[in-house]
Formats: sequence, structure tokens, C-alpha cells
Amino acid sequence: MSVQAIVSSGPKVMRVAVVGVGLVGSEFINQLLNFPTPNPFRIVTLTSSKTTLHAPDGLNITPDSWKQSLAQASLRPDFPFLLRELAALVKPGEPVVLVDNTSSNAVAALYPQFLRSGVHVITPNKKAFSAELSLYESIVSASLASGAKFLNEATVGAGLPIISTLKDLVATGDQVLKIEGVFSGTMSYIFNEFSTGQEGGPSFSSVVKVAREKGYTEPHPADDLNGADVARKLTILSRCIPSLRSSLPDGYQSVSTKSLVPQELEGIDTGDEFIARLPEFDDHFNKMRADAAKENQVLRFAGVIDVASGTIKADLEKYPVTHPFATALGGSDNIVMFYTARYGARPLVVQGAGAGAAVTAMGVMSDLLKLV
Amino acid sequence: MSVQAIVSSGPKVMRVAVVGVGLVGSEFINQLLNFPTPNPFRIVTLTSSKTTLHAPDGLNITPDSWKQSLAQASLRPDFPFLLRELAALVKPGEPVVLVDNTSSNAVAALYPQFLRSGVHVITPNKKAFSAELSLYESIVSASLASGAKFLNEATVGAGLPIISTLKDLVATGDQVLKIEGVFSGTMSYIFNEFSTGQEGGPSFSSVVKVAREKGYTEPHPADDLNGADVARKLTILSRCIPSLRSSLPDGYQSVSTKSLVPQELEGIDTGDEFIARLPEFDDHFNKMRADAAKENQVLRFAGVIDVASGTIKADLEKYPVTHPFATALGGSDNIVMFYTARYGARPLVVQGAGAGAAVTAMGVMSDLLKLV
Ligand SMILES: NC(=O)c1ccc[n+]([C@@H]2O[C@H](COP(=O)([O-])OP(=O)(O)OC[C@H]3O[C@@H](n4cnc5c(N)ncnc54)[C@H](OP(=O)(O)O)[C@@H]3O)[C@@H](O)[C@H]2O)c1
Ligand SMILES: NC(=O)c1ccc[n+]([C@@H]2O[C@H](COP(=O)([O-])OP(=O)(O)OC[C@H]3O[C@@H](n4cnc5c(N)ncnc54)[C@H](OP(=O)(O)O)[C@@H]3O)[C@@H](O)[C@H]2O)c1
Repeated sequence: MSVQAIVSSGPKVMRVAVVGVGLVGSEFINQLLNFPTPNPFRIVTLTSSKTTLHAPDGLNITPDSWKQSLAQASLRPDFPFLLRELAALVKPGEPVVLVDNTSSNAVAALYPQFLRSGVHVITPNKKAFSAELSLYESIVSASLASGAKFLNEATVGAGLPIISTLKDLVATGDQVLKIEGVFSGTMSYIFNEFSTGQEGGPSFSSVVKVAREKGYTEPHPADDLNGADVARKLTILSRCIPSLRSSLPDGYQSVSTKSLVPQELEGIDTGDEFIARLPEFDDHFNKMRADAAKENQVLRFAGVIDVASGTIKADLEKYPVTHPFATALGGSDNIVMFYTARYGARPLVVQGAGAGAAVTAMGVMSDLLKLV
Repeated sequence: MSVQAIVSSGPKVMRVAVVGVGLVGSEFINQLLNFPTPNPFRIVTLTSSKTTLHAPDGLNITPDSWKQSLAQASLRPDFPFLLRELAALVKPGEPVVLVDNTSSNAVAALYPQFLRSGVHVITPNKKAFSAELSLYESIVSASLASGAKFLNEATVGAGLPIISTLKDLVATGDQVLKIEGVFSGTMSYIFNEFSTGQEGGPSFSSVVKVAREKGYTEPHPADDLNGADVARKLTILSRCIPSLRSSLPDGYQSVSTKSLVPQELEGIDTGDEFIARLPEFDDHFNKMRADAAKENQVLRFAGVIDVASGTIKADLEKYPVTHPFATALGGSDNIVMFYTARYGARPLVVQGAGAGAAVTAMGVMSDLLKLV
């Protein structure tokens, strides 16, 4: 046997089924189709919520053609069919990967079945990993049983190396003591604009309004301001830390989370109405900003995982104006600080844009490259 | 065939030959021996510069015993023997890895032979990757020919995810525009202490003296102050960027590097004499600090890779007191900013301790885990 044959274990061909072709999905497909030759990836499935395309040896598509082909397809999405098809394609040295670029709970609930059939799962979709512990555990055990991997780098910080860094710290035997970060690009933008260490400044409602106009918030800003996105990310990270793995039975709902949605505005149906009424609560936010400024502090919506005490919380916190959360953040940056036994008093820090289709797709793509 | 057998491609056993058992090597061996069961790693070789131990099925050593066993060994290091032995152990599904924890040029020069024989190479040793281009190219081609991998995460930023992040950016098709950072823990410490934005402060020589006493510098501080360490790291990073891969024919010696060693002190034999004479040049450094402070700037010894212009330089630069190199750095932190097409105006940033045996060994260990 030649040395080449002995050593090179990388597959010649990797089949990729892409579910969800929105902002991230489209960008991901383009990155995949533009991969330099020899391109090991064969896209075998494209699925939107309405139609699907499937070809076991790879779809004949180009960056310019796939959208139209998918839109004109006559087949409807059929997950039981997809599961059977992909499972049948798994062969030694020819891995098959499901890439879920939706935010669907229904798709997330199928991961254990795909994994059990030997199909790897890669996704930026937070749902499965931040829901109740039982789903997470069935994902882990399905993966262990078949050897198929699940990778979810892009669920926290998009393309930033956050989950991989945490996994490396844990796997190499470091002791993670605390993780503290600004995990929501939307919250980052809002508070970078709102609270700069001065007592005054633009009103909270005006900052949220601008953020929404710039497309930085969900259509309904309450979906960002309720803190659930941060709680989901904290759940995902906590489950990478052995001692915390089982500590959030209800997933993100077990995280101690401060909602910034005023009680009176809870349940308001539309984003427009929410934005129209938010100014009623500007005094409240103004006062918090002024109080912080008097102590030379800024407000930041942060996530904290304190391993020793088991505290996992998403809350509006105060940080000194000299703290990196005040000095180093801008735009809609995420920042994550890992305090560990090996790093001692000065944490390992990762910072940068934590949202955006191109960088999110890159996080998905980098997971895919780990399997090659 | 069971699903498990089809999918799980991870090796059951990975043989590891450890060359160099100093600060990093010792810590690495302990991390390896303490890896949670089932521990896939078998240490087949331990080699200091004086003695060697070898057992094809794994040495029978413990964290408490290996130092003594190695010291008492009667075999001398013999690289031709090691090469033959390791090559013979390479089997399908049973990878063999050479981990070079020395700073030896002689060991570095052997990488192409190990790689060509199918032995993976992992190392924190900068020498091979920052020397002349021809050595680097023979490493790359040996790796391509056999499929054996070379991984060198710990050569830049120790345990920080810097090389892996750069490789991900490149591999997923992002366009790296500029990399700017503080790459030397020693230089970071010296200038974090020396230049804080004030016109005055401790003298340059006193800061260097304290840094040496704390063990932050090489025994001879000129080995840090000459900038070569930064130039080596810039060479390693540049070679990960396709358009710059061949641009440094003489490796780190092709990098435009500012030496902070005063001309009059070049060639001084001992660190002690160097330290004794450094105060003669304090006025020079004082003036630079004061000039920078007058412009509200600090001095930092930075590395810059500007991809479009092909500029690769290690130099003493000025940064505004509001810049992260001024506000966010402390201790002997490294910081690296990646400016890319996808990240736009706000860079991806990685920061933290870039030296120390435990975090360096962790970088080596994380490379090893990539092969499992
Ligand atoms: N965008 C970011 O910056 C970012 C950052 C980090 C993580 N993420 C995550 O990445 C995922 C995708 O985000 P996105 O911004 O691309 O969202 P998006 O533009 O809304 O795209 C989601 C896509 O999923 C499709 N979909 C929903 N349910 C489906 C189903 N059952 N079967 C097939 N397709 C289904 C939708 O199809 P239709 O259009 O046909 O309904 C839509 O095209 C989400 O989980 C998000 O949380 C995004
Ligand atoms: N320490 C850090 O913070 C750090 C950070 C990043 C990268 N690194 C890199 O990591 C490597 C190791 O650093 P270190 O701090 O552990 O250095 P170290 O304590 O000086 O250890 C180097 C070891 O290599 C051994 N050695 C030298 N030549 C050899 C040869 N031909 N064969 C076998 N062994 C040989 C030496 O053995 P003897 O003692 O028997 O002479 C010594 O034990 C270096 O390349 C360094 O640049 C270190």
C-alpha cells in the first residue's frame, strides 16, 4: 500500500443536503459552489419551506441557476423521504452531511434521527441545542452511537471561533472558570449607541427604532429585547462545559434572563406598535444610564456563565468605562471572554461581528471543513 | 456493516513521538498522560537532547515517572533511527505523530522526511516555517505527497486560535486584507509598562530589566528586542495567505524588521552586560514616548501584514490612546486583528496570553485533537 493510501483519510467526496435557503443558506450555497477545485462537495439536496431538489450524485446547479431551479421544482419538502435517502448514501469514506440553515424547531427535532443514521449535522440554528435537555441528550447519544458528528460553531458568534475555542479549552484539560460576553449583535449595537459613559444621549426608543430601520433587529424588536437569544447562546456554551452539561433542564428557559421588554408592552402583536409605544419607557432607561454614568460605568446586555457557582444569566450589567465592553466594542460586535485556570487573571478574548449572512455561512463552512 | 463502522473514522490509537521535554514539552506530556479515558494516545518516544526512550506499543510511563526514566535511559537521540521506526509504525487507521517541542533548527530540517514517510508533524517550534522558502515548500510538498499533516497553531500566539482562524478565513473563501497585531508577549509587556499615553514614566532600561527578572525575556534581552520573533510569526502567517505564500524567499529575514537593539550594543555577548549598558539609550526611548504622548498616542511593537501592497513589517508603531492596542492590552497579552472582506470595517480580534508553557502545550494538544 502506498504511503498516500495509508495516511490520507480525507474523503474524496462529501455529500451535502442543504435545508433552508434564506440569507445564510444562500450565502452558504455560494461558498460551497465556489470552493476551489478539486471541490469535494456535492450538493445532493436543496430544500426551502416550499420545494425541494434531490439528486444522489449531486445536483447540477451553478451560483446563478440554483434559485430558479429550486423555485420551479415540483417536489415538496419531505423529511421522512430525505432521511431514508441520506441514510442510504452513507458509505465508508463517503460522508453525508445535513446542513440546516433554517430556524425551524421541526427540523431541529429531526437531528437525532439523521445522526443515528450516520448523517452528520451542521447548523447555525440554535433551536436544538438550546431547547430542553432531553433533546440535547438524544442528539449526543445518537452521535455517539453512530459516530456521526454534530457541529454548531455558527450558533454562537456566527463565524467567530467561540465554540471551537471552548471545546479546545475543555478537551485539552483546561478548567473553564467563567465566560462573560456580549452575545447579541443587536443588543451590542443598541447599548454601544445608547450608553457611552455620559449621563445623557439619545433616547432608548430612538436607538431601538434606528436599529430596526437598519435591519439590526428582528421585525418585532421584542424578539431581541426579551434576551432569549442570549439565553439560548448561554445554554449552548454551558452544555460544552462538563460540570454544567445537565444544569439547564428546560434549556434557555432555565437561564436567569432579564427581559428589556416593558411589562406593559408584552404581548403586543406588531413591531410597529411596539416601536410606537416604546418612548413611554424612555425615562426608565434614561435613569439607568445616568445612574451608571455617575459611577463611571456603561450599560451592556451581557451573558455570564460562572462555572463554580453554576450561575448562568443574561442581564443588563454595568461595566467601568475602561472595561473592554465599553472601550473595544463598536457596531454590532460580539465579544467573549474566557477565564480559565491556564489563562489566569487575563482572559482569552474573541471579538468581532457576530451576525451577518457571509460570516455566519463561513462558520457553517468551517464546520464542514472539519469533517473533510 | 454497522452504521458505527461506516461513519466513525477516528483512529482507535494514535502514536505520539515527543522530541524536546523542556517547559512546553513537560507540560504537553502531562496533558497527554492525563487525557480522559479512553485515552487514544500512546507515547512511543521521548527524546531530550541527551537521551531517548522508545517503545513501539507505547512507553510505560506516568506523570510522576517519565522524567526520571528518561534521564536514566542509556540510548542517545538518533533521528535516522527514529525516522525509520516511526515510518514503520504508520498503518491505516493508526496514525503516527512527531511532536517537536524543541527550538532546534536541526529537528525542523527533518520535517520533510517525516512527512514524506506518512508521519504527521505538530510543533510550537517556529524555525521550519519561518526559515527560507525552500524548506517551507518542501514541507508542503512532502505533506501533499503522503497526506500526512503538519500543524503549528502554537507557533503564533501559543494557545490562542490564530493560525486556525486565519486558515478558516482563507479556506472558506474570505479575502484577508490586513493582519495587525502585537505578537510578542515580551514586547507587549515592555510597552504596556513603558508607554501608557503619559509623557513620562519608568525608563526603558528599567522596564526591560524588570521584564528579564520576571522571566518574560530571553536570558539575553536582545533576542527579544531585535524583533526577529515577531518577524518569524509574520512569516508563518503570511505563508497561510495564498497571494503572499512565496513572497518571503529568506523567511523572517525578508521581513522588514525594526530592531530595538541600539547599534552600539549589537554583538554584546551576555544579557547581564546588555542590561548594564541599556540605560545609555534611555533618552532616545524617552523622547519617542514623549513625542507619541504629545499626539495622544502610545508606542507598541506591532506586526503588520498588508495583503494588497504586500507589506510585511515588524516595527515600533504609534497608536491612539483609544486604540485597543492601548486600552485592551495588559500583562504580556498578544492581540491579533484580522481585517477581511467579509468582516468589513470592524476586524475579527483574538487576544490573550501568547506565551507560557501550559497555554503553549494546549495549542499543541489542540492540533493533536484535530487529527483524532
Ligand atoms: N443571519 C444571521 O446573521 C445569523 C447569525 C447567526 C445564526 N443565524 C441562524 O441561521 C439560521 C438561518 O438564518 P437566516 O438569517 O438565513 O434566516 P432566513 O433568511 O429567515 O432563512 C431561513 C430559511 O429557512 C427556511 N425554512 C424554514 N423552515 C423550513 C423548513 N421546515 N424546511 C425547509 N426550509 C425551511 C425558510 O424558507 P422560506 O423562505 O421558504 O420560508 C428560509 O429560507 C437561523 O437559525 C438563524 O438563527 C443567522
Ligand atoms: N515557552 C513558551 O511560552 C513558548 C510559547 C510559544 C512557543 N514556544 C516554542 O516551544 C518550543 C519549546 O519551548 P520551551 O519553552 O519548552 O523551551 P525549553 O524549555 O528550552 O525546551 C526545549 C527543549 O528542547 C530540547 N532539545 C533541543 N534540541 C534538541 C534536540 N536536537 N533533540 C532533542 N531535544 C532537544 C532541550 O533539551 P535539553 O534540555 O536536553 O537541552 C529542551 O528540553 C520552542 O520552539 C519555543 O519557541 C514556547
